[in-house]
Amino acid sequence: MTQFFTEEGSVEAVNARMGSDVDPRLKEVMACLTKHLHNFAKEIHPTQEEWDIGIDFLTKTGQICSGERQEFILLSDVLGFSMLVDAMNNRRPVGATENTVFGPFHVAGAPERAMGENISLDGKGETCLYEGRVVDLQGEPIEGAKIDVWSDNAEGFYDVQQPGIQPKWNNRGIFTTGEGGRYSFIGIKPVSYPIPDDGPVGKMLRALGRHPYRPAHMHFLVTAPGYQKLVTHTFVGDDPYITSDTVFGVKETLVAPFEHVGGETEWCSHFDFVLTPTARDP
Amino acid sequence: MTQFFTEEGSVEAVNARMGSDVDPRLKEVMACLTKHLHNFAKEIHPTQEEWDIGIDFLTKTGQICSGERQEFILLSDVLGFSMLVDAMNNRRPVGATENTVFGPFHVAGAPERAMGENISLDGKGETCLYEGRVVDLQGEPIEGAKIDVWSDNAEGFYDVQQPGIQPKWNNRGIFTTGEGGRYSFIGIKPVSYPIPDDGPVGKMLRALGRHPYRPAHMHFLVTAPGYQKLVTHTFVGDDPYITSDTVFGVKETLVAPFEHVGGETEWCSHFDFVLTPTARDP
Repeated sequence: MTQFFTEEGSVEAVNARMGSDVDPRLKEVMACLTKHLHNFAKEIHPTQEEWDIGIDFLTKTGQICSGERQEFILLSDVLGFSMLVDAMNNRRPVGATENTVFGPFHVAGAPERAMGENISLDGKGETCLYEGRVVDLQGEPIEGAKIDVWSDNAEGFYDVQQPGIQPKWNNRGIFTTGEGGRYSFIGIKPVSYPIPDDGPVGKMLRALGRHPYRPAHMHFLVTAPGYQKLVTHTFVGDDPYITSDTVFGVKETLVAPFEHVGGETEWCSHFDFVLTPTARDP
Repeated sequence: MTQFFTEEGSVEAVNARMGSDVDPRLKEVMACLTKHLHNFAKEIHPTQEEWDIGIDFLTKTGQICSGERQEFILLSDVLGFSMLVDAMNNRRPVGATENTVFGPFHVAGAPERAMGENISLDGKGETCLYEGRVVDLQGEPIEGAKIDVWSDNAEGFYDVQQPGIQPKWNNRGIFTTGEGGRYSFIGIKPVSYPIPDDGPVGKMLRALGRHPYRPAHMHFLVTAPGYQKLVTHTFVGDDPYITSDTVFGVKETLVAPFEHVGGETEWCSHFDFVLTPTARDP
């Protein structure tokens, strides 16, 4: 190998530059990144103008980020990268409830509520009873599991997106399973909404002929001692975007029944969460 | 294939989302990008915390960019990506002078100067006579070629990095070859300098056990009607960073002689530029 950069030896030239005293994991990650980055370039042969466009896109994506806006997470989401990382880190046995993306709208410290309470504080939307059980892989109930739930309101916004407009903690709450591992609460039947699409990622989606919508979903974060943390949603199956979630969050097993019962509470969605035990130390 | 995202089918799930009416080249580039991005993740299996670090790094890289600072170009440079794109777009026949990176310090509209004039306006540094010829692949002289040159000053800064401190157009000038394709001018023997390393890219270099230096070089932009634009440097061979240019710009054929002649002009560097004809239309 020549000591200088060549087109053919480009990956080796870059990776050989790393020092001997580098964190081994960092070295592994960066060597792999360089390889794939260069192989990408070698496969598509970008022109200098295309390289300019790429630099400009990344720059604008960084520049629009703020305390309230994270465009690089959106980029990771719409490229399926967030879901892939989530999937690889949460492989579960058959029968266990699957994970999906956490999303940017969780807020720690939501009010603890009693079973059956209503989390919709703005009175908008179609009411829905959520009920079911938290069980283990053998179907045995798990009592004392914490269920942290959150959804958008009937207009497609989370409370944190509309401070001063929605009541604080609108469509959020924490419930603790009791006897039989049972839970129940009243919320709304959620609605589909677009991810923020007025930035570089939205522009990219339009250029790719893609819409920015997520199908309607209720978020669940379920935790219990001795079990893996479950970060998931349940999805409304008849949503027009159910097969084209712009962040690829839908898994077949997470499409939940939403039954129109038409009483004072208009809908009912029954879903059991099956937790996976944490791996034992060897 | 399931209509939903799966770990195994992640690349296909994302790429199948693109519309039918998308620009074919954009489609090709994005499909290839998704493939390599997902394959990178599948190979290194990032943890959620590593993903967080990646998002944070990209965000900070974008946020430090300004009118005077382009951190994503630095990132592309230190990963060898800029040189790779340059190399792929400027494959030349044997014997032709090779390209290297343009760099961020060129300024259009430098003063046109007469042959032999001095471009070092601050009087600092060791003077050096640059001379040689511009020729074609057969060695025939090219008269009327424009040679746009620029370098740092003796302290390692380009004039645009020190407005108000260095004279305007310090170490810059445009020369036109005359009879025999000859050129000559006086500048300084350039010095090595670090790329800006007080941002995320500098931090990354330190974590990788890499230094931020570029070996000393003189920039040349050589143009003549009927020939490919040549963007290159000549390098000072005894520079301590000659084999470890942090942006991988050095090519073996671009290491130039710098001879200590010790007269009023202390050094002499002779270099002939061999231009490649532009491709004819078929």
